[in-house]
Parts: sequence; C-alpha cells; structure tokens
Amino acid sequence: MPNNHNTQHASVAASSSSSNFPHNAFDPGVRHDRDDTSACPFCQIASVYTPYNPADPPSSDADLLNPEAGAPSPATFVVLSTPLLVGFLDIMPLSTGHVLLCTRRHRPKLTDASAAESLELGRYLRVLSAAVARATGVHDWNVVQNNGAAAAQVVPHMHFHVIPRPELRSKGPERFTSTMFGRGMREDLDEEEAAPLAERIREVVAEVMHEEAEAEAEDKAKL
Amino acid sequence: MPNNHNTQHASVAASSSSSNFPHNAFDPGVRHDRDDTSACPFCQIASVYTPYNPADPPSSDADLLNPEAGAPSPATFVVLSTPLLVGFLDIMPLSTGHVLLCTRRHRPKLTDASAAESLELGRYLRVLSAAVARATGVHDWNVVQNNGAAAAQVVPHMHFHVIPRPELRSKGPERFTSTMFGRGMREDLDEEEAAPLAERIREVVAEVMHEEAEAEAEDKAKL
Ligand SMILES: [Zn+2]
Ligand SMILES: [Zn+2]
Ligand SMILES: [Zn+2]
Ligand SMILES: [Zn+2]
Repeated sequence: MPNNHNTQHASVAASSSSSNFPHNAFDPGVRHDRDDTSACPFCQIASVYTPYNPADPPSSDADLLNPEAGAPSPATFVVLSTPLLVGFLDIMPLSTGHVLLCTRRHRPKLTDASAAESLELGRYLRVLSAAVARATGVHDWNVVQNNGAAAAQVVPHMHFHVIPRPELRSKGPERFTSTMFGRGMREDLDEEEAAPLAERIREVVAEVMHEEAEAEAEDKAKL
Repeated sequence: MPNNHNTQHASVAASSSSSNFPHNAFDPGVRHDRDDTSACPFCQIASVYTPYNPADPPSSDADLLNPEAGAPSPATFVVLSTPLLVGFLDIMPLSTGHVLLCTRRHRPKLTDASAAESLELGRYLRVLSAAVARATGVHDWNVVQNNGAAAAQVVPHMHFHVIPRPELRSKGPERFTSTMFGRGMREDLDEEEAAPLAERIREVVAEVMHEEAEAEAEDKAKL
C-alpha cells in the first residue's frame, strides 16, 4: 500500500535525536515557496474534501466523504470540514483517536494563518478535543503544534495534533515511554477501525456544536 | 527565593518516565473541585493582573504591571492581559521567550473553556507566537497544551505553552536532546533578563494587533 505521507509525524519528542529526524521533500527547510502546494499532502486532502456543517455531518456513505477523483492515498478519515479548516485521523497515530486539525488553505506556520482562521482554530480545538475524548473514552490528551524544522515540523502546512493519552503505566514503563515519545509504537492507521471511529467523532462533534449553541442561547437570555 | 510553583513544567516529553513525573498538590488527579482555586498559581496571577488593551500596553513601570498587594512570588512577567486571558513568561523556561497563555478564569482542561474563551485562545496563540518570534529572533517554535495527569499536565488550570526552538544542534547533541525533552536544561527565569524581554513582547503584541486590524480593514474594503 502506498504511504506517501508517513512523514506526518506527531510530537515534539519525535525529533529526539538529529539522526532520527526525517528529512525529505516536505522538510520546511528546503521548501520556501508557499504557493507550491502541489506536493503538500494536506492541501491535497483540503482540495478533495469539501465543507459540510459540523452540527449536521453527512453519513459515512455520503459522496462528500467518499470522493472518487483525487482521493489521497492512504485513505483519509475526515472528522471536520469547514470553509476554513479540515480535521482528520492521523495516518500514523500515536494512540487511537489521534487527529490533526489544519487550515484548508496552505499556511506554513501558525503565524501565517489569518485572524479569522486563528479564531476558528481555537474554536474547533476545543470542540475536537471534547469529541475525541468522548469518542475514545480517554479524557487526558495533548495538543501539539510544531512550527519549523527546529521544532520538529515535518509537513509544512500548519496543523494541530490532538493526541489522546490513555493511562499506560500499568502496561509497563517501556510501552509508556515509547508511546509518550512517539518512537516505536506508531503504526499505520487500521482502516477497518478508522471508519467507525471517524464516524463516531463526527457525531460527537455535532453534539458538542449543539451544546455550544445552547450555552450561547442561555448566555444571551441572561443579558 | 521562594519558588512556590516550579511545578509549572512544560513539554509533553517532561513526563518521559513515571519516576520523573512530579506528583504534588496540583496534580489534577487529586483535585476535582474546580471552585477551589485558592491554591492555583495561575488564578493568583489572574487575580492580581487586571486587563489592559493589548494594542496599547502600559509602560513597564505602570502600576498595572507592578501590583503591590498579592503579587505572586516568584515575580510574574505579564505579556498579555485581557478580560478572558492572561499570558506571562514561564518561570522555568525551556528557552528564552517561553511563555504561557491561560484563561483568566479557572478552567482545568481545554474542554472546560467557554466558546468565547476558545476563540480568544486561538486568536492570541497566533498573536503571541508572532510576538515571541519577533522579540527573540527565533522563528521555530512549539505550541503545547497538556490535559490531565496522563498527558503530563501539572498545573490544573488550562494553559498553552509557546516554546521557541533555537537551532541547537551546532552546540552538540546532548544540549539539543535535553532542551527538546525538557530535562536538565530548565533554569529559573533570570529576572533581570525577563523584564526587558516581557516589555519587548508586549510591544510586539501591540504591533501584531495593529497589523491584524489593518488586514481586517483591507478585507472589508474589498467587499
Ligand atoms: Zn505534525
Ligand atoms: Zn498545504
Ligand atoms: Zn504546563
Ligand atoms: Zn486556576
């Protein structure tokens, strides 16, 4: 199976030593033309998956979630798709439910995002965090966002990682350490598990959006 | 010098092994009453530093930045203070310019933030990232936010770390590794360096706010 963006690594800790540090075509150190997005895996995903209303997600078999033309390989499991942002399962998860949230447009670093994109990133980081926690049952997690090669950024299209952290110490220190550090335990996403997981996350995103709307209505009623 | 919240650690990697993992009164595993904020160092900071307009920050000698009563110890170097959020230099920085951005109100995890707070967190993460990069001259950085003990959260009041990552490999692999992992190289904030650094960050935050307002005015003119 082709795996043309397994450079989509995750945590700060993934760059623990310079010898482990992956250098390749996506290395931001060698790509400066921010309009050259043809090789960007996240731009490819953004171009194929059109926006939908997160409060009313399409069913898993909807055309919108199953594009015929230009579908990236390996398969993408979208959990959010708005006019400004796209969220999807990491193809090499550190844990079940590891998702990425990126701008739809190609923005190399967080500081390249527009003010409107920044607001939406803040909004949906909370929504996605809640959705991932409820969908996985794991209520501890990290949010990580890397900018530049020295900060371990590999795909030069800004993205946040949301990484569930199940309590692993009972399984022994080795597994705990390797999972925390992003070494060894990363595996290709299991596509059979991924489809229902992504569907569940989309459903819970919708729940959280409804809760947010209710809370806002209550706040307005108080004024 | 008293250092009553040096538990304010930073990166995901800080919890590399369970033996290194600090357990103390701020462990979210043992504090569930989110209204008991008397022991929370970030609530203390929030209560002492009142909001100001980030686009027009007070001078370093202003009373607002030098509260007489209730000032936390060690000294706090505020870089942002709005009705919803507070930003300040980490008291045990992983690198020069390491700042924290938290909600003014006590919110244990990101998912406890309100919708309005989430929007502001997104907005000011970009602004603070830009300000820290310009103030330090270091243009690679990580954004890290930990939720829960299994994710290495120590202070149970939600906060984002913005951590500049100077290119350290030229100084040898040992220094690079220890800085990336948040072990060994953390030192107490140098208060003499901190005051002018915080002032510079406040100034650049104001610059970025003006740039944001100009970009918005241009966008509106186009419509
Ligand atoms: Zn990444
Ligand atoms: Zn891109
Ligand atoms: Zn922290
Ligand atoms: Zn607090």
